[in-house]
Amino acid sequence: MEKSDTIRPGEQTLAIDPATLADAQLAFIGQIASPWSRREDCPKNMREARLRARPAAILIAAPFRPALAGLAAGQFLHVLTWLGQARRDLALQMPRHASQPRGTFALRSPVRPNPIGLHLVRILAIDSAEGRIDIDGIDVLDATAVVDLKPFFETADIPPAGPFFGGSPGGEDA
Amino acid sequence: MEKSDTIRPGEQTLAIDPATLADAQLAFIGQIASPWSRREDCPKNMREARLRARPAAILIAAPFRPALAGLAAGQFLHVLTWLGQARRDLALQMPRHASQPRGTFALRSPVRPNPIGLHLVRILAIDSAEGRIDIDGIDVLDATAVVDLKPFFETADIPPAGPFFGGSPGGEDA
Repeated sequence: MEKSDTIRPGEQTLAIDPATLADAQLAFIGQIASPWSRREDCPKNMREARLRARPAAILIAAPFRPALAGLAAGQFLHVLTWLGQARRDLALQMPRHASQPRGTFALRSPVRPNPIGLHLVRILAIDSAEGRIDIDGIDVLDATAVVDLKPFFETADIPPAGPFFGGSPGGEDA
Repeated sequence: MEKSDTIRPGEQTLAIDPATLADAQLAFIGQIASPWSRREDCPKNMREARLRARPAAILIAAPFRPALAGLAAGQFLHVLTWLGQARRDLALQMPRHASQPRGTFALRSPVRPNPIGLHLVRILAIDSAEGRIDIDGIDVLDATAVVDLKPFFETADIPPAGPFFGGSPGGEDA
């Protein structure tokens, strides 16, 4: 959840600003209620959010509540958010504590052409009529907009068997 | 990848059409090259796409290619697509072979308020200068728009230990 208008040494902008493009339009379906109102307090990724063990909630706007039918406590859910405070025009970024810049698409930073956040959370309780989903925690600021909810499915969302070269400890901290 | 203007028995529309809202704007960063040009041939989910074992590719537009730095063959990647052919206004849907309707947010159907697809793929090869990422397969039609790429991280993207009630065999087939 880092917003900055300044560019650090080693960082590089794209040749265009994606914020000036409008190929498709999003509708906000609700917002996050989280304990984090200041950027410096907010967990930097879902691993940190889970370690802090501070529950949060997804508040779904009234017109979208009928679409919650079938979700239940205990399920894991992908939450897609809109991290609209971040700049969108960086090609290379210098993560904190990194020794060299990395491409935006190799990072989970909110600074990206389309600032959609992807967060795997667990449903603690759900009240569909009120549009409230209590969750185990999340790594976004209070009042962050929500654009989609998707059920997690092991068969689709876990890498299939085979050599695995993905990720490195701390690598998601961007 | 099912588009339909007709509503099946048991299905229900939202009180508003999300396509009429414009809370945020997306920039397309590229498109998918897949073997699937007809909806009836397209795998219905990533499990099916992997079983078919038909490689595909992500073609990134020139302005966004510098942001690919750091991605490498072997890595798993979340691809976010824009499934713009689907209607967006269903609250309850009747998946094929289902006995009763389910809420949109309990399904992975492309019919949803914001038709963003989430696909976990493996990078087979990458040519950043050409903007081409060869992948193991994907469950979308040829020429589907791409809106984001995110590295998969085990610490963030796999459910933490504990009771797990998510998913059921075939449940992601929507």
